[in-house]
Amino acid sequence: MIHEVAAIQIKPEAGILFERAFLRAVPLFERAKGCRFIRLERSVEDPLRYLIVIGWDMIEDHVSGFRSSEDYGRWRDLVGDLFAAPPLVDHTEVIVAYSLKDIG
Amino acid sequence: MIHEVAAIQIKPEAGILFERAFLRAVPLFERAKGCRFIRLERSVEDPLRYLIVIGWDMIEDHVSGFRSSEDYGRWRDLVGDLFAAPPLVDHTEVIVAYSLKDIG
Repeated sequence: MIHEVAAIQIKPEAGILFERAFLRAVPLFERAKGCRFIRLERSVEDPLRYLIVIGWDMIEDHVSGFRSSEDYGRWRDLVGDLFAAPPLVDHTEVIVAYSLKDIG
Repeated sequence: MIHEVAAIQIKPEAGILFERAFLRAVPLFERAKGCRFIRLERSVEDPLRYLIVIGWDMIEDHVSGFRSSEDYGRWRDLVGDLFAAPPLVDHTEVIVAYSLKDIG
């Protein structure tokens, strides 16, 4: 699995709108081929900065699949106007992962 | 829980060294107060770019706890020389999280 990690700066006072729009967009990802999870994280240091992390089976599911789908247009329609700048998108693969202190 | 998200650019050809050093550093986090998980992710686009994501019970467990501990010095001793630039560190809280297609 590949993680799409998108760093997004939104416009001032758009926080609640952006979070609501993200929730409305969940079904777009739910039906996207190869999409395994989605997560919205908000920065503690700057509440106008968000991370969207999306798990895809393969990078192609995001880059050539979702991005060329009609749902990508719907996604941009929902959230695009709230972006203060183009998102910075990276793809990562997990190299090491440990859960600690799950017991006790 | 808070996520510490550190974006790290490492020196050319330091990849294997960095990943080995990260593995050796796992016990430092394992015994750190409030540390719930650690994850090392490598960028697909640039294999010299990594994300370290660490789950902390509270932001203080990282900022005033771990960073002022002797283990922080040990962590920097293990990996600091491999950094090409100071890490960019953010803290986030999860706003929305969905796991999709776990069934079937």
